[in-house]
Amino acid sequence: MATPQCERPMRERVEEYINKLQDEIVSAFEKLDPSSPPFKRDSWVRPQGGSGRSCVFASTASSDLAALNGEPSPNASGQQSILEKAGVNISVVHGNLPPAAIKQMRADHSSMPLPEREEGLPFFAAGLSLVVHPRNPHAPTVHANYRYFEITEPKASSSTEASQGEAENAQPKVLAWWFGGGSDLTPSYLYEEDAVHWHTTIRDACTPHGPQLYPTFKKWCDEYFYIPHRGETRGIGGVFFDDLNSGPHARFPGAAEGEEPKRPRTPNECFAFAQSLGNAFVPSYLPILSKRHSLNYSPAERRWQLLRRGRYVEFNLVYDRGTKFGLMTPGARIESILMSLPETARWEYMSEVGQEEGSEEEKVMTVLKEPREWV
Amino acid sequence: MATPQCERPMRERVEEYINKLQDEIVSAFEKLDPSSPPFKRDSWVRPQGGSGRSCVFASTASSDLAALNGEPSPNASGQQSILEKAGVNISVVHGNLPPAAIKQMRADHSSMPLPEREEGLPFFAAGLSLVVHPRNPHAPTVHANYRYFEITEPKASSSTEASQGEAENAQPKVLAWWFGGGSDLTPSYLYEEDAVHWHTTIRDACTPHGPQLYPTFKKWCDEYFYIPHRGETRGIGGVFFDDLNSGPHARFPGAAEGEEPKRPRTPNECFAFAQSLGNAFVPSYLPILSKRHSLNYSPAERRWQLLRRGRYVEFNLVYDRGTKFGLMTPGARIESILMSLPETARWEYMSEVGQEEGSEEEKVMTVLKEPREWV
Repeated sequence: MATPQCERPMRERVEEYINKLQDEIVSAFEKLDPSSPPFKRDSWVRPQGGSGRSCVFASTASSDLAALNGEPSPNASGQQSILEKAGVNISVVHGNLPPAAIKQMRADHSSMPLPEREEGLPFFAAGLSLVVHPRNPHAPTVHANYRYFEITEPKASSSTEASQGEAENAQPKVLAWWFGGGSDLTPSYLYEEDAVHWHTTIRDACTPHGPQLYPTFKKWCDEYFYIPHRGETRGIGGVFFDDLNSGPHARFPGAAEGEEPKRPRTPNECFAFAQSLGNAFVPSYLPILSKRHSLNYSPAERRWQLLRRGRYVEFNLVYDRGTKFGLMTPGARIESILMSLPETARWEYMSEVGQEEGSEEEKVMTVLKEPREWV
Repeated sequence: MATPQCERPMRERVEEYINKLQDEIVSAFEKLDPSSPPFKRDSWVRPQGGSGRSCVFASTASSDLAALNGEPSPNASGQQSILEKAGVNISVVHGNLPPAAIKQMRADHSSMPLPEREEGLPFFAAGLSLVVHPRNPHAPTVHANYRYFEITEPKASSSTEASQGEAENAQPKVLAWWFGGGSDLTPSYLYEEDAVHWHTTIRDACTPHGPQLYPTFKKWCDEYFYIPHRGETRGIGGVFFDDLNSGPHARFPGAAEGEEPKRPRTPNECFAFAQSLGNAFVPSYLPILSKRHSLNYSPAERRWQLLRRGRYVEFNLVYDRGTKFGLMTPGARIESILMSLPETARWEYMSEVGQEEGSEEEKVMTVLKEPREWV
């Protein structure tokens, strides 16, 4: 189970994987809607270290204007695009984590070393993050994220090691590491068969890595994507996990007594689990989008979708930890952080929509107020 | 200068004033647009103590649907309504402030007593809050708020006083009090004459109460309505103040040395100042709205307005203290707190709008990135 010495460093393997995954996911969307313009690829470099690539889909300016004028926004073949706004982004960044940031992260990551040195510690973070808002109110919004984080020994001490016989270009010693991620679905209208397909695909990606992973991370997802001031979840969930590594994990009771159930522990096992989830994204979501994107919809259904997107904005701006952390980080790439927001959102005072008993709008509210077990 | 014993309690006088002000303001909007439906009056009672009245304007459901269908939403006479979404709300609430809340408020309000008693202390809060989002991109969004806050002795000790000869229905002794409020303007397109009119009217309402009030509270407004992650203010400001009472005030240097400039100090003086600002609302805003609501606008201008409304949402959900406090308060009236959000907001990834040199969109950005002195 131990990682062989000759194996490539995890950071390189993760970087390679998320690059490949980004291409696969973007291609799947482009293949589904060949008459719409392709995603816009946008590479960027972080002055403090690292780089990334955003792949973004947006209504083109001319179709935007048409839509604002009240005309439908057609694509080349005269049809509306399937997606309204989407981003599939990867970033691979590194730098120095100041003691204050280390201290803050220790709250969620027990393996984080104590911030002993004034200069902080080097970190490495690589991840893929995506949000897709389709145009049709019957097609759900989806979000997914897969990430790897490392804290390493400062360069000074690794050069000491190097002088003790290791190669000059040896990788710095990893002091702490973890994987995190997950995916969740936000429908405006509930299709039970879609919810079952979504959760089944994700569960089947989890189970080979441990039978407790899906139920544990499904619950975590329902808890995380919750809007307290509305008393409802953002959507119908999926899985959410963080801080997955070889140490004890707060979400698996019995960890202290060594009674923890089978779960990924070594770097290779955790990476294999993250890959399994990443690879499940296309088969979990694309069949749903294919089935729903061309359904007829009414202005009333569009209105409900925009109201639900208002809730999406409320969650992301008020509660999402990644967004909040990003907005507070000086020099952060705001456009990437707020890429998750929908193109259009709507707020009505005391809206009556969604209140009517027996309506399709009330049906989805029921499962947002009380998360259901889908598989 | 001392308040005469026979004078009515401030809480009653404030309540009466904000009731009257709400009627005046709502009437002014209704008079400007007689062919649109009137504001919807909606009274509510707070189970823990107090009540309020919301006066709300919203596109009616049928015109909503028309707009979502791409048709303009006409009013009775076939015209679009001047306002898109507006709320003019008053609330008069009282109850018990727990020690934790007292402690938190002491950070901003130096006159707040120490939270010595486990049961906390009685509070009273009365205020008017309004947000108006007109439909036309050339007409600015406006926000205003005027509020009065009191902390009183617990009932037990006031009944002791009563037994010492005072009337049974004596008002509780006020331990701390302050006025706060202000108004600020958020244009999508900059009309310098409108900005000058707005600031001149507000300045003229301030100056009789002290020449330093306008410059001090104008600066405070620019600082408060700032969106750090965008590096821009929410709008072109106005005035913002808080914690105004007879004690020293952090915004007036020299307070400790008794060198503070002339400013409202007694309850009557502070109330007179708040009334002066409240009374200035209609003359500061309505002439601007009258001038701009019927200008022709293009879909591109509408798009820019919706993008700017996205920024409005970002400020309110991420930074506004009142909103954040409200969302975290169990049992708070969410619909009133989020009434400030626009009907529709828009987000684009890396939008090119507003970047073009010499454009009208860039012109407004210039004054949002560097607040200007308008009078």
